[in-house]
Amino acid sequence: MEYLSNIQLYFSEDLNLITDETEVHHIQKVMRHNIDDIIYVTDGKGTILKSKLTRIGKREIIIEKIEKYQYENVLKHISLCIPLLKNPDRFTFAIEKTIELGFTNFIIYQPKITTKKEFKKERIEKLGIAAMKQSLRSFLPKFEFIKELNQLDCLNINFFDQNGGENFLGANILTGNDYTFVFGGESGFSSEEYRFLKNYKSYKLTPNRLRSETAIIAASTLIAMNQQLINV
Amino acid sequence: MEYLSNIQLYFSEDLNLITDETEVHHIQKVMRHNIDDIIYVTDGKGTILKSKLTRIGKREIIIEKIEKYQYENVLKHISLCIPLLKNPDRFTFAIEKTIELGFTNFIIYQPKITTKKEFKKERIEKLGIAAMKQSLRSFLPKFEFIKELNQLDCLNINFFDQNGGENFLGANILTGNDYTFVFGGESGFSSEEYRFLKNYKSYKLTPNRLRSETAIIAASTLIAMNQQLINV
Repeated sequence: MEYLSNIQLYFSEDLNLITDETEVHHIQKVMRHNIDDIIYVTDGKGTILKSKLTRIGKREIIIEKIEKYQYENVLKHISLCIPLLKNPDRFTFAIEKTIELGFTNFIIYQPKITTKKEFKKERIEKLGIAAMKQSLRSFLPKFEFIKELNQLDCLNINFFDQNGGENFLGANILTGNDYTFVFGGESGFSSEEYRFLKNYKSYKLTPNRLRSETAIIAASTLIAMNQQLINV
Repeated sequence: MEYLSNIQLYFSEDLNLITDETEVHHIQKVMRHNIDDIIYVTDGKGTILKSKLTRIGKREIIIEKIEKYQYENVLKHISLCIPLLKNPDRFTFAIEKTIELGFTNFIIYQPKITTKKEFKKERIEKLGIAAMKQSLRSFLPKFEFIKELNQLDCLNINFFDQNGGENFLGANILTGNDYTFVFGGESGFSSEEYRFLKNYKSYKLTPNRLRSETAIIAASTLIAMNQQLINV
């Protein structure tokens, strides 16, 4: 697999025709591309196309394939269940970093302890697309939203807790099995959330306190690095 | 070693007398503590004192030891050499996260490629204290500032590069030896920086592009988790 760097990546589900307003604007007005220029486009399904601009319209851009790069979603069997954080910057940071590390499945929940906030679904999905493009990934991140953690309906649930069981090193994940990893909010888990989680496996990252987004990024690093090694 | 959680930690080099203006203000005006209240104070040298407030003056607070917690600096032999990033939020995040993970030695350099920015030394040191307190760490982070990467004068220099050599998993670090890990800026290393680095060992984190701060946090996670395991 060849990995690209130092390119600008665009997103279009259709790899012949780009119609997304933002992408069309960026190609035409920001990057000021002309006919015959080379651009890179991903369909969010594992393909990146090196392509030539053959037609630039106001609302659509037609491209022609020059070279095709195909990738595998190494972390497709892993879901991260992440709370909406009070601090939007920290939430954004956690999502951006985990996408850079290669994660594509997200379940976002409203933690019990913090004040209820509405999901800004569209904003979160846009954030996902931006992070995919920036880190030159080719799988569109998928987001599921649940109101309460106990609505989580997955096989093989694991959670991280400062007082958790085993030390987590990311090495004990088997390919072929599905996994969901649950992280707590800024104030940890509520007693109701604990009642739900008590049937599942808990892990500990460090003996000292980590902020929510730090735990998310640290655990994701360990998972991603280990899965990557298996798949080399 | 007992690790604390859900406490507010203060910093005072003198563990009998708190004179730092911000800390005195916080204890008195923000937390509104009274005589005989219990607070936790670290000296930044590995000790956290559970202590009783015995006197609250306008400029100083006298405390009395109740219990002493002593920690070991597990990562004292490791230095992180981090570039000043163009985006101050991303720089702040990198510093905050690595301190949470237990790092205490930082060398900050000005990367060649980006426009020259002055170091805001005081701001960076304050950030270090805040991150230490927030993550209930007890070692004051030390910062060294160098104008150019080739001024780096350390034993055992290693650097991270997308096109680097060995895959990095953090397991190949020996205790008892000193290590310095160098990270590139937003645009990678300049050719001059590469000339300096070419004599040293390079590592690769992931095959795809990672932002500077992501590489810093991911590598730090791998180092910290492995060193922690050795020291359990």
